[in-house]
Amino acid sequence: MFRVLRTTRGGGMETDFERLHPRDSAEEDDDDEMVDIAGATLDFSSTDDVPPLGAGGLDDYFGSSSSSRAGVTGVTGMNGSAPKLVDPLDDPLPGVGTYEDFNTIDWVREKSRDRDRHREITKKSRQSTLALLRSVSDAFSGWLLMLLVGLMAGALAGGIDIAAHWLTDLKEGVCLVGFWFNHEHCCWTSNETTFQERDRCPQWQTWAQLISGQSQGAFAYIINYLMYLFWALIFSLLAVTLVRAFAPYACGSGIPEIKTILSGFIIRGYLGKWTLITKTITLVLAVSSGLSLGKEGPLVHVACCCANILCHLFTKYRKNEAKRREVLSAAAAVGVSVAFGAPIGGVLFSLEEVSYYFPLKTLWRSFFAALVAAFTLRSINPFGNSRLVLFYVEFHAPWHLVELAPFILLGIFGGLWGALFIRANIAWCRRRKTTRLGHYPVLEVLVVTAVTALIAFPNSYTRMSGAELISELFNDCSLLDSSQLCGYKQPSMNISDTGAGNSLADRPAGAGLYTALWQLALALIFKMSITVITFGMKVPSGLFIPSMAVGPSRAGCWVGWCSPGADCITPGLYAMVGAAACLGGVTRMTVSLVVIMFELTGGLEYIVPLMAATMTSKWVADAFGREGIYEAHIRLNGYPFLEAKEEFEHSSLAVDVMRPRRSDPPLAVLTQDSMTLGEVEALVESTHYSGFPVVVSQESQRLVGFVFRRDLLISIDNARKRQEGVVSASLVVFTEHAPAQAPEAPPFTVTDHTAMDITVDIFRKLGLRQCLVTHNGRLLGIITKKDILKHMAQIANRDPDSILFN
Amino acid sequence: MFRVLRTTRGGGMETDFERLHPRDSAEEDDDDEMVDIAGATLDFSSTDDVPPLGAGGLDDYFGSSSSSRAGVTGVTGMNGSAPKLVDPLDDPLPGVGTYEDFNTIDWVREKSRDRDRHREITKKSRQSTLALLRSVSDAFSGWLLMLLVGLMAGALAGGIDIAAHWLTDLKEGVCLVGFWFNHEHCCWTSNETTFQERDRCPQWQTWAQLISGQSQGAFAYIINYLMYLFWALIFSLLAVTLVRAFAPYACGSGIPEIKTILSGFIIRGYLGKWTLITKTITLVLAVSSGLSLGKEGPLVHVACCCANILCHLFTKYRKNEAKRREVLSAAAAVGVSVAFGAPIGGVLFSLEEVSYYFPLKTLWRSFFAALVAAFTLRSINPFGNSRLVLFYVEFHAPWHLVELAPFILLGIFGGLWGALFIRANIAWCRRRKTTRLGHYPVLEVLVVTAVTALIAFPNSYTRMSGAELISELFNDCSLLDSSQLCGYKQPSMNISDTGAGNSLADRPAGAGLYTALWQLALALIFKMSITVITFGMKVPSGLFIPSMAVGPSRAGCWVGWCSPGADCITPGLYAMVGAAACLGGVTRMTVSLVVIMFELTGGLEYIVPLMAATMTSKWVADAFGREGIYEAHIRLNGYPFLEAKEEFEHSSLAVDVMRPRRSDPPLAVLTQDSMTLGEVEALVESTHYSGFPVVVSQESQRLVGFVFRRDLLISIDNARKRQEGVVSASLVVFTEHAPAQAPEAPPFTVTDHTAMDITVDIFRKLGLRQCLVTHNGRLLGIITKKDILKHMAQIANRDPDSILFN
Repeated sequence: MFRVLRTTRGGGMETDFERLHPRDSAEEDDDDEMVDIAGATLDFSSTDDVPPLGAGGLDDYFGSSSSSRAGVTGVTGMNGSAPKLVDPLDDPLPGVGTYEDFNTIDWVREKSRDRDRHREITKKSRQSTLALLRSVSDAFSGWLLMLLVGLMAGALAGGIDIAAHWLTDLKEGVCLVGFWFNHEHCCWTSNETTFQERDRCPQWQTWAQLISGQSQGAFAYIINYLMYLFWALIFSLLAVTLVRAFAPYACGSGIPEIKTILSGFIIRGYLGKWTLITKTITLVLAVSSGLSLGKEGPLVHVACCCANILCHLFTKYRKNEAKRREVLSAAAAVGVSVAFGAPIGGVLFSLEEVSYYFPLKTLWRSFFAALVAAFTLRSINPFGNSRLVLFYVEFHAPWHLVELAPFILLGIFGGLWGALFIRANIAWCRRRKTTRLGHYPVLEVLVVTAVTALIAFPNSYTRMSGAELISELFNDCSLLDSSQLCGYKQPSMNISDTGAGNSLADRPAGAGLYTALWQLALALIFKMSITVITFGMKVPSGLFIPSMAVGPSRAGCWVGWCSPGADCITPGLYAMVGAAACLGGVTRMTVSLVVIMFELTGGLEYIVPLMAATMTSKWVADAFGREGIYEAHIRLNGYPFLEAKEEFEHSSLAVDVMRPRRSDPPLAVLTQDSMTLGEVEALVESTHYSGFPVVVSQESQRLVGFVFRRDLLISIDNARKRQEGVVSASLVVFTEHAPAQAPEAPPFTVTDHTAMDITVDIFRKLGLRQCLVTHNGRLLGIITKKDILKHMAQIANRDPDSILFN
Repeated sequence: MFRVLRTTRGGGMETDFERLHPRDSAEEDDDDEMVDIAGATLDFSSTDDVPPLGAGGLDDYFGSSSSSRAGVTGVTGMNGSAPKLVDPLDDPLPGVGTYEDFNTIDWVREKSRDRDRHREITKKSRQSTLALLRSVSDAFSGWLLMLLVGLMAGALAGGIDIAAHWLTDLKEGVCLVGFWFNHEHCCWTSNETTFQERDRCPQWQTWAQLISGQSQGAFAYIINYLMYLFWALIFSLLAVTLVRAFAPYACGSGIPEIKTILSGFIIRGYLGKWTLITKTITLVLAVSSGLSLGKEGPLVHVACCCANILCHLFTKYRKNEAKRREVLSAAAAVGVSVAFGAPIGGVLFSLEEVSYYFPLKTLWRSFFAALVAAFTLRSINPFGNSRLVLFYVEFHAPWHLVELAPFILLGIFGGLWGALFIRANIAWCRRRKTTRLGHYPVLEVLVVTAVTALIAFPNSYTRMSGAELISELFNDCSLLDSSQLCGYKQPSMNISDTGAGNSLADRPAGAGLYTALWQLALALIFKMSITVITFGMKVPSGLFIPSMAVGPSRAGCWVGWCSPGADCITPGLYAMVGAAACLGGVTRMTVSLVVIMFELTGGLEYIVPLMAATMTSKWVADAFGREGIYEAHIRLNGYPFLEAKEEFEHSSLAVDVMRPRRSDPPLAVLTQDSMTLGEVEALVESTHYSGFPVVVSQESQRLVGFVFRRDLLISIDNARKRQEGVVSASLVVFTEHAPAQAPEAPPFTVTDHTAMDITVDIFRKLGLRQCLVTHNGRLLGIITKKDILKHMAQIANRDPDSILFN
């Protein structure tokens, strides 16, 4: 793109050089033209030496970049004054990472680089058999990577399930045969006939039995209560300490950050090996501690970590941020696939909720990876029932058209709950960020755990885990069922098509039913309030299960209260629809949610009720605010995320958004062939912009191109080192003639009167970082992604400075 | 965008006018700013007066536009010398259709117009309650439209199923109770106990019984044979005559054309009401005639016609080509949903195979519409078994890992067959286009029908319809089954995990088995060859069922031969995997195919075999040529379709592709403010380009913008009519200042050294028609979609003139 001309003050010009391409000598780096230049000279990776256990973490990055100038692109300097948390695995080769931490990648450039690489391989493959083999292995490396991701994520998910099951049971008692057995495995060999009796097998001892020798009575109850509390506190303390010590990024659900990363943002170490290890361990601890959280979101994060780490095995993916994001999209599908045992739903979740750039190739690969993961999990068989799914249900009762009304009502409730939850949770998280509350994360976790454990223990519906609760409520009471909720005299039936379902009302409800309903109502209120506080704490925490648990609880209460004694409807179906509605209200998923539920039940029969409830839920929740919980958290954290779902509604023009504004100083530009090296260096040093437009001359301002700061610095350094007689007075010449084998991404331009809706569309679809604004071929200004986000924030009457990063 | 200045030869300039916006007076057209200008003055819709039954049709459009010049955009003139087949419903308002027939729409412009419309409605909605209501109804009109599409397509599909069933049975005999009953319904009330006996109920009379009174013997056989032939010929003659007379577009599967239309191409009347009516009727006839074709592709076409016609009920969709294409994408999902009873598979089919622009909103709506359609079809219950799916199968036998080898082998066979089929079919279709064969479509159809009927009748596997054949072969032989293929002594079992499955080999096969296998082998060879000729004839013809039928036939033969007597494997599963592999090889579907199959069987168990077979099939077929059958037909017909699946591999630059080439005359440009009306009109009349770049001056060539020919003509005409003193010597002034409420789409620019892979990406993602090429702000040339397609054809060593349209 540019050359430095050696020149003497008065005289003509002599030697010029173009970028050197020692491609043939540097065998390893032949697919990355940045490396050979950068590696030898400027070491931008010096900040990577910060040890992985650096202090601060999350709290730091919320503050560090807010000082970035309101300049053209507002990048903080290359010297990286803020301490960065870097995973060494993330960037092992010096100079490979073209992007700064907390910056946005240039999709066009990355994809163009990958095409160059591919072209090179194809060209070589015609020359020798070895190169042909390499070309074939390159083509299949994506599939191999998917296979590995599926296997690894499936295995990890199986391990997490088994460990969490064991630790959860440890809160209640211990197995005398071997402490590593959970309750179910411990009593596996017991020869009692019924399930209930087998659960009380002598090998399994509650803490009260072990300590006091009593299994009944108030004293035993208190001992069990205290031990439950004790273990819960131990688990949560361990979890929060590990997160703080080893990987601050391991907290939360991870989906907002993964969404942002997939849209092109860089958060170094977020998907590194420290995060993976820490998140896997702490997820088990957090789930076992009895907190109101699920493992589904964190499993997506774990799967993405696996994918990111495995990417390092393949040059193709290690060195290209765009290609790596394709793999991460597939990994998100894998995460949901292992969380629910729903591979198709996982792919649609990735497509609908998480991914930004999702080409068809990724669709196929995601599906493949999701299948591999699901079958790996099934071979591990953590639930011991060789079922793929988390809570398998099979209904047989059909539903009737009149039932659509209650389903839609459930949808409305779900939507209201979703909107309320998002507001409350965001308000609480904001308070955590802005007040002193945020300074005591360990204390917060311990207090919430204590409260949860204290309230949860006496109520059997809250004492059991979220997944168990959902499983119980989804259950279509059958004759074998021992659940209290199935205390009807007869198994449930459904409204017959006569409409006169009242004839069935004379069947009295069992004695335990009212107690169960009261407990369920209390559990509902408790779950609703504690989840608001729990989601966002410094432990891994997923939302799916708590959100879903609220739905069936409500549906269960409702079914119970609205028709006491009249067992005329299928409670399990209502529970399922309620769960979908609540989760839909919180996350605003639609199709993927319905498909996940479809895979859980395995019948097309219930798609219509589910669809009715989720669509209603989404519409109702959207009426109170368009953002789902993940988008709300993205905005709360100030990530530069350009939402693809919503249209840009305002009628502003490019000229209204671009920098410089009327009051600003003019744009810092380079001229094509009239600036000396000294002038260029002075300009670069006096500013912090990530790139500079090049114009023909200061007078004409006719646009030639755009040069990235990094490329400029590298080339200048190269010139100084490799070329004789380069002094500050040398002329720098910029040419558009990139070498044929590595064409640079062109500077995108729009005219000043281009509508912003079109500009936003271009940014979204092409994945731009910046775009130049011209008028009649003359450069007027520049628009960056951050400028657009600030502009959108202004329109929505929000604080434009809430967007922290580039 | 521009004004005409009234001027006198020598003197200064006076009154200028901008585009008039009689927005408030013209109440009806307030959402389309083109209308109020165009409607009053230039009637571009004059060509729409050609009656819908115009001669020629398909044959015409293959030739008409090939004469378009190799100019900048190569559009034939506005006067439309070629006769066009126009559906009056398609464009009822004069001047609304901004695009010429066989041209490509400008996605950016269309979407921008829709956002303007939406903005206008939102703005108004704050002013009055009525406007608010209108805004709400506008927001829900999309869902209402989807509901209507689902209902209409579901009802039509049900009608087609019932009619085809009846006509197919009519070939064999007639019901004495009422000729409108089909065989099954006729014998419905028969009180025989077994299925086989019930099928021979006295109410149903074969033609031999009716004519000669005999039901057995050679004479009866010959009479039945002749009547079968007679009806087949009648049906196919009717079908081809109706197609030729009323709607030439109704032939074929329609999917290649719908793919092209969804990518932004205009084919007027292709989705009109004449096409709908004709296709519905002729589809029934073609299917009933016993030709080797299916109804799946045509059902997609029928659903799209429904959607297009229903779009006219809503201004939002009637007037916007981009919005209408969103609806059509959903309609494609509806088509597959009713064809197979697989709503999720339908949505994925639309996403993977057909759609070009598929935002999330469309995903939700497609899913909704597909569900509505599936349930409408189920309420009609055409198969009489209240099943949603075409051939419901339920397997219970698990498969084992060693079986992956035969599954992959089936995939290889499927891929080979797919590649072979595409080559043979395209070669035949090319011959039909270029030789005298194409001049006798009616004769061709009759001959093929006769051959099909003559060969098909004696063999029971070819005599039954494709769907029945598949259903029979999918069947997992159970004890109740009467199929000849289930002539084993015992129901099938599967390889046990001991591997020594040979211990089961002593069970002898039944007597009928070998005959059945021979028949099946003959049916396979026959189906394979006749389908090549059938697909592409001038009757509605789908590919899914014939392709799928080949798979299980082969699998069936293979299973039969490879293990004679050893009933150790589940033949139904192999048949299903074989069907998926063959269909995958022909169409290159992957995920959607697996999901459709999953929905048919309703179990996650068999996803892995299906996935293995379809992926292998795709890879094998891709090795022989990257195009699926639909892409091959698109290329055969010369449609301007920019494939989104394949990367642009070549390393050419924008300057290599742009016009004018070095030897060409310079680009026809307008200058910003120095051309007189006479000069502009002379330039416009002397060229046929669809638009002109505007530059500051002929000397500087600095780019100002781009004006469409149509807009220019309309504004000039307007100026002449509404403004005093506009003469040929008046100066025309172009300004970039579009009125704030209707910003024009900007001219997209790339620099001359932009790599073509990036340029192609921009064209694809933004849906451009053309893009200007600049160097340092100076205009160099223009690249159109057609230029890119020609360039790609050149690279692939194909004839660049094969791209016929713009």
